[in-house]
Amino acid sequence: MIINVGIIGATGHTGEVLIELLLNHPGVRITHLFNSGKSGQGAQTISDVFPKFKHRLELVCTKPDWAKIKKDCDLVFLTLPHTVSMKFVPRLLSLGKKVIDLSADYRLTNPSVYEKFYKVTHADKASLKDAVYGLPELYRVKIKTAKLLANPGCYPTSAILALAPLLALNLVNLNSIIIDAKSGVSGAGKKVEKEFLFSEIQGDFRAYKVNVHQHAPEINQVLSKLSGKKVDVVFVPHLLPIERGILSTIYLKKAPGAKLKVKSLIDLYKKFYKNEPFIRIKPDGVFPRIKDVVKTNFCDIGVKDFGSTIIVISTIDNLLKGASAQAVQNMNIMYKFQETAGLL
Amino acid sequence: MIINVGIIGATGHTGEVLIELLLNHPGVRITHLFNSGKSGQGAQTISDVFPKFKHRLELVCTKPDWAKIKKDCDLVFLTLPHTVSMKFVPRLLSLGKKVIDLSADYRLTNPSVYEKFYKVTHADKASLKDAVYGLPELYRVKIKTAKLLANPGCYPTSAILALAPLLALNLVNLNSIIIDAKSGVSGAGKKVEKEFLFSEIQGDFRAYKVNVHQHAPEINQVLSKLSGKKVDVVFVPHLLPIERGILSTIYLKKAPGAKLKVKSLIDLYKKFYKNEPFIRIKPDGVFPRIKDVVKTNFCDIGVKDFGSTIIVISTIDNLLKGASAQAVQNMNIMYKFQETAGLL
Amino acid sequence: MIINVGIIGATGHTGEVLIELLLNHPGVRITHLFNSGKSGQGAQTISDVFPKFKHRLELVCTKPDWAKIKKDCDLVFLTLPHTVSMKFVPRLLSLGKKVIDLSADYRLTNPSVYEKFYKVTHADKASLKDAVYGLPELYRVKIKTAKLLANPGCYPTSAILALAPLLALNLVNLNSIIIDAKSGVSGAGKKVEKEFLFSEIQGDFRAYKVNVHQHAPEINQVLSKLSGKKVDVVFVPHLLPIERGILSTIYLKKAPGAKLKVKSLIDLYKKFYKNEPFIRIKPDGVFPRIKDVVKTNFCDIGVKDFGSTIIVISTIDNLLKGASAQAVQNMNIMYKFQETAGLL
Amino acid sequence: MIINVGIIGATGHTGEVLIELLLNHPGVRITHLFNSGKSGQGAQTISDVFPKFKHRLELVCTKPDWAKIKKDCDLVFLTLPHTVSMKFVPRLLSLGKKVIDLSADYRLTNPSVYEKFYKVTHADKASLKDAVYGLPELYRVKIKTAKLLANPGCYPTSAILALAPLLALNLVNLNSIIIDAKSGVSGAGKKVEKEFLFSEIQGDFRAYKVNVHQHAPEINQVLSKLSGKKVDVVFVPHLLPIERGILSTIYLKKAPGAKLKVKSLIDLYKKFYKNEPFIRIKPDGVFPRIKDVVKTNFCDIGVKDFGSTIIVISTIDNLLKGASAQAVQNMNIMYKFQETAGLL
Repeated sequence: MIINVGIIGATGHTGEVLIELLLNHPGVRITHLFNSGKSGQGAQTISDVFPKFKHRLELVCTKPDWAKIKKDCDLVFLTLPHTVSMKFVPRLLSLGKKVIDLSADYRLTNPSVYEKFYKVTHADKASLKDAVYGLPELYRVKIKTAKLLANPGCYPTSAILALAPLLALNLVNLNSIIIDAKSGVSGAGKKVEKEFLFSEIQGDFRAYKVNVHQHAPEINQVLSKLSGKKVDVVFVPHLLPIERGILSTIYLKKAPGAKLKVKSLIDLYKKFYKNEPFIRIKPDGVFPRIKDVVKTNFCDIGVKDFGSTIIVISTIDNLLKGASAQAVQNMNIMYKFQETAGLL
Repeated sequence: MIINVGIIGATGHTGEVLIELLLNHPGVRITHLFNSGKSGQGAQTISDVFPKFKHRLELVCTKPDWAKIKKDCDLVFLTLPHTVSMKFVPRLLSLGKKVIDLSADYRLTNPSVYEKFYKVTHADKASLKDAVYGLPELYRVKIKTAKLLANPGCYPTSAILALAPLLALNLVNLNSIIIDAKSGVSGAGKKVEKEFLFSEIQGDFRAYKVNVHQHAPEINQVLSKLSGKKVDVVFVPHLLPIERGILSTIYLKKAPGAKLKVKSLIDLYKKFYKNEPFIRIKPDGVFPRIKDVVKTNFCDIGVKDFGSTIIVISTIDNLLKGASAQAVQNMNIMYKFQETAGLL
Repeated sequence: MIINVGIIGATGHTGEVLIELLLNHPGVRITHLFNSGKSGQGAQTISDVFPKFKHRLELVCTKPDWAKIKKDCDLVFLTLPHTVSMKFVPRLLSLGKKVIDLSADYRLTNPSVYEKFYKVTHADKASLKDAVYGLPELYRVKIKTAKLLANPGCYPTSAILALAPLLALNLVNLNSIIIDAKSGVSGAGKKVEKEFLFSEIQGDFRAYKVNVHQHAPEINQVLSKLSGKKVDVVFVPHLLPIERGILSTIYLKKAPGAKLKVKSLIDLYKKFYKNEPFIRIKPDGVFPRIKDVVKTNFCDIGVKDFGSTIIVISTIDNLLKGASAQAVQNMNIMYKFQETAGLL
Repeated sequence: MIINVGIIGATGHTGEVLIELLLNHPGVRITHLFNSGKSGQGAQTISDVFPKFKHRLELVCTKPDWAKIKKDCDLVFLTLPHTVSMKFVPRLLSLGKKVIDLSADYRLTNPSVYEKFYKVTHADKASLKDAVYGLPELYRVKIKTAKLLANPGCYPTSAILALAPLLALNLVNLNSIIIDAKSGVSGAGKKVEKEFLFSEIQGDFRAYKVNVHQHAPEINQVLSKLSGKKVDVVFVPHLLPIERGILSTIYLKKAPGAKLKVKSLIDLYKKFYKNEPFIRIKPDGVFPRIKDVVKTNFCDIGVKDFGSTIIVISTIDNLLKGASAQAVQNMNIMYKFQETAGLL
């Protein structure tokens, strides 16, 4: 089977990475590339935007063209900034297109939380209830029939996968969770701002949005659903002087009276993620490093019990498992491709 | 006043940095440089070992020569590996020399803790009781008359300065302290091991010695003394792909019933470190970055109250405030130089 | 068609990259992985050597086993150090196996030149005459029937592709060629030596083996054959603080009376490399950058005429077009796969 | 002696580095800091612009104030963009102030060359004839009495110091000089442009302004004066993924009949630069690396004779010997301070 795919927002960094993945996918034909339609954006050959695609893909990227979308696309990926995606989604759905949205617009089920953290009114509350949160390890069944898929944020993917086994089994003091996360610079896309200059980043390291980052409510939403109780994590992201990768170091206290039914946390994690093609659990005493997951869709996890405190460390490539490759994994599930197609 | 200074262990990385500082110090004459005396080490001109000293310092570095030490040194710095320093200290003290030891050998007051974490028998328990822990912001008075100064570790300097104001005032739940620290590679010196190759470090980030690092007992010792109760921190160090700098992100819960007597934590910190030339407190909502302290002796600190949780972030240059420059600061205090001489 | 492939030297860096490529190749089954057979090397699961292969390849890498090679391999790749490959080649050929050797052992047709630059006696002069130099853009016809393929060096690939159009048409003063090349650190593999530590490479840049590098005779050999006259280039390699990529800046004087038959050098290059899937010529006034070729098998080339001087700049990924991916391209030609299979 | 110094353009990167140097200079009092006076620039405490100066310098940086300049400055440094300096120089000179200009405005003696390369009309041709080119190793005598000092460009400093001994002695074929230069990113200041983002620079390397860079005429001017004949170099700069440092690899052919009067090129260079405190000549077969000169005012040079070709490699810190520290060295000469004051 070959499906026809369009991308809106193809000139951004997430779009670039997604194109690269889809070029290697045996079941996909990229039929159209569109920019965000902002006034002033002219048509451009994609290999002029990204010279590395020269000799590989010579499509012209134009402003969104609804006639072409209607005729030539089974599925549309949105690699657009937050708040822009929701301008396209209703019409795409009404045309019967499936949509995978890589922005944050449909991740939060409660629009008032969205509005508080993204500082804008939600323009498409109607579609919100149909959106499926695309974390395959937790929601594979729903993803199979999703029409509007909200692809998770990078930090939430890294944190939720690290915590899910413990929360699903009620082993955690829910007031104790601290997530100290470190991300490469590509998480910020390619914003032309002083703080992302080479001379600012190279040799530096700093925290940012200390305990006020917009990914915290996304993490809280999923963890609360998993545990059945309100979870409110402490979340501090930091900026690493590297291009790709997230490592989250997570600290938590055990729930009073928590009892493992397996002989170790490692066994618990291995059992929870049994059959998951993209989760790898480290042996006892070994913790993951970013290098092993860069340019892959894997999430590596190490966990250890230190008496009252449990420490979990997870790593992903923020552009892949944290964005474009997870979107492809979701597409694979939605279209019944092998789940690892184009990804291994 | 000019003092005559010798360095034992001058061919190591800490030695290199210390030489650079002392060359700029108006009150110091470097009289002799010695290697560690390991068999097989020949005499070398220091500018052959470190070409950057060409045209600046042409001393020959030889094996330790007790006659020269006796005659030509008021003060001896030891920039030696752990367990090597204690072979030199007793004889230096018996010759009446002052000693500033940059290794860990005299930092821990309890030799059995030392032996547990450094996996070796302590060979000079007799001198231990005379050693003064060289953190000027806490122990300036004792440093003034110290004969054997134990220069603090890099992580402990960063963590203790960040926590001291809260612990001294009993504002902290002592079971809740989590220190998530990130250090540049120079913390490991210049060990020729696979894990420190450019191809391993560049683009990577990882935790190491998760909650078992030898600096944890040093932190616990000082914090326990400050608070008057046993403190046992959770401490996870990470390796940054940069050369210099430590950033520690510290999480803690307030003590039940803790009450500030000033209007904010910022004010508390500013008051605690009033008149300290090398401590800089960030304004509300601003946290420090590594770039601002690299190549300086400063410790920058940001702190914020998030309800039950307090987050403190501190930065230092691990080779300077975390090692050689703090040693010079201690020397300045011991010899009544201006405390900032050679450092600002 | 599926071919069975073995790799001897699989635990090295070139082996690691080759495995990654072959895992994505639709026509290849990796049947066996072998180390170099040095005494002391035990059997290891390849995903223990390279944790990133966990969940992707679980073969055990053992010492070379001739029975298995005989039975299960159509083709054997040698990713071995120079001087080690030639110990395996004669027996592999006698078993009727095809061999792609990524070392330098069969690149130089004159063994005395080899012996001068690699400082060792050539142990298999007999096979030398059968070796085909595997630069597809120049020697595709011979590669089709090669039994022993000598995969080119990284610098030679970069320099020869940049110069071939000019030399083939006799446009160059052959005494004037200067190649100023800059390579990422992976060119040195993962040697555990002080000079390759992060603390030595990061923030540094230096020339090495100034005009005495062992790749110079390889460049001279191919350029001499192309031009029909003895060529002797000036060649200075430098070490970049990056992991992957080579950029060669090449300066040359025009031959007296040289006349282009096309309207520009750009046209000349485009014509010379017409139909080449992995050569991309930059438009006038634009020169290539390393980022665009990293993780690809492309060679990007920019060229400009400045009166008497011509400047050519080329870029490749030293581990791919400069090593493992070019080896796969050669395999594709030898086995009549599509030439871009597994590479685009 | 203490001199009073003002800086116009203090909020730029060169200004930042200059302030740092002057803070360590025993004979300088910084009396005033000014911005460039562009409309919209408000007054700012310098430690708010550069947090690393907190606790070290608390001057307010305002728009240029002629009354203050007149009253409180013996010497004014201009760390302004090209074309802006020449708006300030005439008035400063008319007030009897000495001026050290770090821009390119007074480096080229022929204003039509300036206008061709900087694409702007020269607004102060009258002062041009009084400007002294501030390369101490060549023009120390003139610098002593200079009123308007044109501080050299970074690439020219690196190239001219490497070539001067050969050209002064007429050993070079003047048509053969090729300068392949590589610079860290700080050469571009802190321009907020896409091409200087971390994500663009990290892991990349590229040439720019290939043979059309504005520093070429500056190099040609000085070398022509030295050799007494017109020199026209080939000059290709490249951008290194590091913050500081320039390495220039220079290729040239010997002049026909050139004869050394000393036994080696090394001796020639050592003799030529005898007594120069900031020039270090490498031993035979050794070439300089960037790390050894970063954060210093040194220029390291290696040179070797390869028959008809000579290769010279030089390194400097582009922000120090290539800009601010050379300006301080010039100040030291102009004010009869020890030439190394504040620099060693």
